[in-house]
Amino acid sequence: MGRNGFKRQLAMDEPETNRCVAVIGLGSMGFGIAASLLRAGFDVAGSDPNPTVTERLRALGGRVANSPAEAAAGAKAVLCVVVNAAQTEQVLFGPGGCAGQMIPGAAFVAMATIAPDQARSFAAKLAATGADYLDAPISGGAAKAAAGKLSIMASGSPEVFDRVADVLAAVSENLFRLGNQAGQGSTFKIVNQLLAGVHIAVAAEAMAFAAGQGLDLEEVYRVITASAGNSWMFTDRMRRVLDKDRVPRSTTDIFVKDLGIVLDVARAERLPVPISAAALQMFLMASAAGMGAEDDSSVARLYGRLIGSTALDPES
Amino acid sequence: MGRNGFKRQLAMDEPETNRCVAVIGLGSMGFGIAASLLRAGFDVAGSDPNPTVTERLRALGGRVANSPAEAAAGAKAVLCVVVNAAQTEQVLFGPGGCAGQMIPGAAFVAMATIAPDQARSFAAKLAATGADYLDAPISGGAAKAAAGKLSIMASGSPEVFDRVADVLAAVSENLFRLGNQAGQGSTFKIVNQLLAGVHIAVAAEAMAFAAGQGLDLEEVYRVITASAGNSWMFTDRMRRVLDKDRVPRSTTDIFVKDLGIVLDVARAERLPVPISAAALQMFLMASAAGMGAEDDSSVARLYGRLIGSTALDPES
Repeated sequence: MGRNGFKRQLAMDEPETNRCVAVIGLGSMGFGIAASLLRAGFDVAGSDPNPTVTERLRALGGRVANSPAEAAAGAKAVLCVVVNAAQTEQVLFGPGGCAGQMIPGAAFVAMATIAPDQARSFAAKLAATGADYLDAPISGGAAKAAAGKLSIMASGSPEVFDRVADVLAAVSENLFRLGNQAGQGSTFKIVNQLLAGVHIAVAAEAMAFAAGQGLDLEEVYRVITASAGNSWMFTDRMRRVLDKDRVPRSTTDIFVKDLGIVLDVARAERLPVPISAAALQMFLMASAAGMGAEDDSSVARLYGRLIGSTALDPES
Repeated sequence: MGRNGFKRQLAMDEPETNRCVAVIGLGSMGFGIAASLLRAGFDVAGSDPNPTVTERLRALGGRVANSPAEAAAGAKAVLCVVVNAAQTEQVLFGPGGCAGQMIPGAAFVAMATIAPDQARSFAAKLAATGADYLDAPISGGAAKAAAGKLSIMASGSPEVFDRVADVLAAVSENLFRLGNQAGQGSTFKIVNQLLAGVHIAVAAEAMAFAAGQGLDLEEVYRVITASAGNSWMFTDRMRRVLDKDRVPRSTTDIFVKDLGIVLDVARAERLPVPISAAALQMFLMASAAGMGAEDDSSVARLYGRLIGSTALDPES
């Protein structure tokens, strides 16, 4: 705490005792976050256009709000767990949006993966209403969200981090604090997505290559996951492919968006990113083949269809 | 051993007591292999055009041969640790080559990364002289070679594996037995190289992207290695880049060759591999910039030069 410990203690008193949190967006990530907060004893108000998920929230003991503004009433933190920048903007500044409706000292925690420029712009516009913005994209998938074990790549003022430390602790196992300015968290997340997207697409390419050469793909999986060619995504996504597990955790279209941000930022910067560009084309190809809402590992299924490999695509 | 255990025991007697091994090619990998064999008590004869490395072998207690044929005399295994298929062909069938000069029951262990078709062709041509071929490309780098802890992705007849089991055990910690036919080991290795090459090139691309956005690259390393965007190669090669460690372990031109094999095989198969194709262009670009004989992590240095990032290229 340092020598200002006593004063900071006083200043934090109110947020420390305020246990109200809003969660906007109750998809697979947002619902898991809301459930983790309820387990940790927070008073959670949720908002989502889909009544199925709001009823599930109510059944767990949460409150259901009719708009982001209503959910934000009285909350010390508003966690925005939507898909993209357009939705984040609606939650903040659209009809029923929470900008201007948050209590003094409340923090808007933006968890979607968006372009760093947008994060900076939202933060500046929100600051004009007197509320604070944490640029806090998440990773880890639905299972980690449900377990309260996400990774958060976050930036924002230290005071805001302190005020919502208990909220972030309830939903994450890794909180990376990556700077004091909005945009920094988003940039780290985009670097991660650049790598993750390429690793998924090249895993599919390698498996298709191996299948075309007549290799046993289970044996390929065993050898590669024990070798220098391995990646976190190869281990994770190719297991799903070989298990013919088609439950969508994160979709093909998420990587169309995230690699799209990579390409946009890089072009503005005049930086060539030829490998990300090739990977984006593969996700676009899967999306064009009707797999946009399916699991991102569908790129491997697209290859299976192309080469007639039932190991990669059971329907091929 | 099964019911033929006694007969096999007899048949293996001679190779089991023969402790002579030839190592052809004493570069960073071959020298480490020869040293590991000497430590394990083998009688090692080495051959290499470079007198510096043959003298180093002699100082460790090895014998120096003037040609592959001379090294192979009396050896139960000839380990060929050269760079590519052209050199492997010379070692086998060129002037002073060992085909036709090996003792009955001796095995030629081909450790370079070569096209699967070439492995099949060399094996067939060698079989006509009465010797056996193990398709056994290695991975792990110079440090693992020196420690006797390589990974070997190998295929060949089970009898040949049995005969040289003690030799392979002395140089490797992972022996993947991937089939009975030449070509299978090489195909697995090529799948690994496809992934490894792309992962190095995209790691460089991601670091350049991060540098262009003003991120602290040590912080990027810390976050990515703990996140879903990580790969074995990111962890390994980007550490070298950030440490400004320019000692070449495996060179840029090795990946020009290996991704070239990927592209050749895929084209023959009529399989598009757009991400490997983009990565190959990046290694070619680094090679064109004069970095062909430098460490393969030089792709990151090339980006550093392009964008003027001293974190990626100290000379930029």
